[in-house]
Amino acid sequence: MKELGHVSLKRPVIVVNFKTYLESSGKEALALAKLCEAVAHETGASIIVAPPLPDLALIASSVNIPVYAQHADDVRPGNTTGHVTLENFRASGASGTLLNHSERRIKVAEIHDLIGLARSLHLATIVCTNNPGVSVACAAMGPDAVAVEPPELIGGDISVTTANPGIVSDTVRAIRSVRPEVAVLCGAGVKGRADVSKALELGSDGVLLASGVVKAKDKRAVLMDLVAGLR
Amino acid sequence: MKELGHVSLKRPVIVVNFKTYLESSGKEALALAKLCEAVAHETGASIIVAPPLPDLALIASSVNIPVYAQHADDVRPGNTTGHVTLENFRASGASGTLLNHSERRIKVAEIHDLIGLARSLHLATIVCTNNPGVSVACAAMGPDAVAVEPPELIGGDISVTTANPGIVSDTVRAIRSVRPEVAVLCGAGVKGRADVSKALELGSDGVLLASGVVKAKDKRAVLMDLVAGLR
Amino acid sequence: MKELGHVSLKRPVIVVNFKTYLESSGKEALALAKLCEAVAHETGASIIVAPPLPDLALIASSVNIPVYAQHADDVRPGNTTGHVTLENFRASGASGTLLNHSERRIKVAEIHDLIGLARSLHLATIVCTNNPGVSVACAAMGPDAVAVEPPELIGGDISVTTANPGIVSDTVRAIRSVRPEVAVLCGAGVKGRADVSKALELGSDGVLLASGVVKAKDKRAVLMDLVAGLR
Amino acid sequence: MKELGHVSLKRPVIVVNFKTYLESSGKEALALAKLCEAVAHETGASIIVAPPLPDLALIASSVNIPVYAQHADDVRPGNTTGHVTLENFRASGASGTLLNHSERRIKVAEIHDLIGLARSLHLATIVCTNNPGVSVACAAMGPDAVAVEPPELIGGDISVTTANPGIVSDTVRAIRSVRPEVAVLCGAGVKGRADVSKALELGSDGVLLASGVVKAKDKRAVLMDLVAGLR
Repeated sequence: MKELGHVSLKRPVIVVNFKTYLESSGKEALALAKLCEAVAHETGASIIVAPPLPDLALIASSVNIPVYAQHADDVRPGNTTGHVTLENFRASGASGTLLNHSERRIKVAEIHDLIGLARSLHLATIVCTNNPGVSVACAAMGPDAVAVEPPELIGGDISVTTANPGIVSDTVRAIRSVRPEVAVLCGAGVKGRADVSKALELGSDGVLLASGVVKAKDKRAVLMDLVAGLR
Repeated sequence: MKELGHVSLKRPVIVVNFKTYLESSGKEALALAKLCEAVAHETGASIIVAPPLPDLALIASSVNIPVYAQHADDVRPGNTTGHVTLENFRASGASGTLLNHSERRIKVAEIHDLIGLARSLHLATIVCTNNPGVSVACAAMGPDAVAVEPPELIGGDISVTTANPGIVSDTVRAIRSVRPEVAVLCGAGVKGRADVSKALELGSDGVLLASGVVKAKDKRAVLMDLVAGLR
Repeated sequence: MKELGHVSLKRPVIVVNFKTYLESSGKEALALAKLCEAVAHETGASIIVAPPLPDLALIASSVNIPVYAQHADDVRPGNTTGHVTLENFRASGASGTLLNHSERRIKVAEIHDLIGLARSLHLATIVCTNNPGVSVACAAMGPDAVAVEPPELIGGDISVTTANPGIVSDTVRAIRSVRPEVAVLCGAGVKGRADVSKALELGSDGVLLASGVVKAKDKRAVLMDLVAGLR
Repeated sequence: MKELGHVSLKRPVIVVNFKTYLESSGKEALALAKLCEAVAHETGASIIVAPPLPDLALIASSVNIPVYAQHADDVRPGNTTGHVTLENFRASGASGTLLNHSERRIKVAEIHDLIGLARSLHLATIVCTNNPGVSVACAAMGPDAVAVEPPELIGGDISVTTANPGIVSDTVRAIRSVRPEVAVLCGAGVKGRADVSKALELGSDGVLLASGVVKAKDKRAVLMDLVAGLR
């Protein structure tokens, strides 16, 4: 694995987005984060967890793998009740943040500002996108990674790598030609080893997934299976 | 003190909103919450803390006074990356939430939905408002409390109870006539004992404040002074 | 019919919301507005039209019945590119505006501000709501009218007056008890004479409808039928 | 002048954004649009007007120069009360739209969708941006033009071409290297001939301005002066 960027995004990587599922909230969030940590340490794999926002500090203080926020508001700390800021994430022990998830899109000028600010705070940024065109636009602003996910496949049973491999390879090719230092992840419907292998084969640097892990009966088995796909 | 509502809002009350100040974020958030807890236990006063969202679970698991969120999105847990839901707050140990703070206004139908849902989850709601007209509208939807705060006085040096006592007494009178069970708080510029005393004298059930505590050099002294105003 | 409020909302009333349907946009918007005007003049009925925002000035300058905007932003004219302001509506010849339609909800403090500002500009306001609780909250802020529409019935085949008459009568009763001067309209699924009759029978002051007119093959016939229900 | 793109953006161009100023709303909007038309016809200059949204159809039906909307929502026509759609703009006679003005920022996926949809509807798009980084990101999505405007200079007395010429030349260079077919405009503080000349000298294809025209005492004189800068 080579070190990516300024902080903590080691390629290839598996990013587990807990979303706001109750199965990965509160005590369950902590348990899942500890499980991801155990698998990462046992296997040497790079695993990032993105727990629900209210659980961020608790988890960041409890595990020794990178903990990311799921979203950041483009506001500065202070008189901004109810917002989530990059500075607060850092104070709470986070290593980075997802930005512009399909369930929490933000404005283009906000993405630009947040990427620059995160860099100065030594936080990593993964910008989520929905197609190669938006991916290139976001890569041009210099995040640590872009994660392309066709919204219609998110939460579904068929992996993007099977349903639409072209969107992954097109995104990889387009980003490599303009900003080769930006990692490219893919997501939506990722469930196991074969999906991860295929993602890397298509040129990406890893996967972003949620329900495949969060809703699994045997979460450890699924995590071990995903990690197996990294080789 | 009489028990208010279904959960944890005991009148009279002091609500300390940590906002997103770095002085009350991360480790500083935990320290301030523990200080509020110590003062509450020493004096028997009712104190609620509303820490930054990323610190919610950590603080709720660390102190034995009510911990509230600063804002809730009107979405349900699940496929909602980057949002903060009432169900997540409950899983993270919170007792209630502020809604519609002047720095995070929400839609009227969202306030209505969130009040009803919070009740079913045994979470308390404090709806922030900016004038008597909006206060009555929000009280009509049956939250546990309405907290009136003229936005232009928030973060300033002069307490609403001095600068505009009429807005407090008008709000109290208007809400008492339609929904007497709804607690009425006031805020903006509250700094010490005299401001709290005046707030109760004007008929309110307590205060909501932020910078008066968060930015104080001697936070314990300020908290003790505020509590003295409750008598 | 008695005059309501400061401007142009005469009860009982039929409000035709053109939404953004292409069948009621551009030239078709003008044709439909002229048809509504013709029916209003022939029958003496009170009909208000709410065309797509880009067509507002053109229609307001072409017909002699009240023309309302479908939505207003709570911003003031000037440095606010791409917004729609009450002051602009007035300059463009509108008589009022819908606020908080279920397809364009706004914040409670915005509704309060806009109602007050509209009054000072001699524009009428119809605040859309989704249930009796939200209706009372909105009525408390003193608009000219509240229009209750269960979102799940909007655009459907069954009128709210058939599917859920209780929501109409509850809203009427609740509003009459606190703000008797506020007109109460109902909407969702309204298609013809029987629906309008029933709406008035339930105590309301008229109806708000869209697809029932916009998507009708014979729009004049539908309008005449609706007007017949006013008697 | 060479024809740009599929519709009506002829370079070099002067885009007059009426914003929501009352001085360029309603009857005043029509008068200003007619004045711009007269100057364009007399001089052969390419002038685009972007009137307040409610005046769009009226002005598009009254003048024979390109009329643009100031903003588009990324929603489709139909059940979308209070929104402004590209399809409605086309039905109302508009030739294009501004997108992402600093006073009305939108999400990156929305910009991408709207650019593609506009193209299919034969509408032109000018995406407003705030710096070279965001400009390149937006140019990568293939609009007809990008207009870079430092927000802190908008509405001010000093033209961007004087206060920060580097932002213009950097944006021109960066966009030319990746998407040479995208026109580059600049704006903020533009007042007269010298500002336009300098903008072209810096490599741009024209200017976007508002208050410089709208708030001028002698609007015709200002327009003639601006046009003189195009040579």
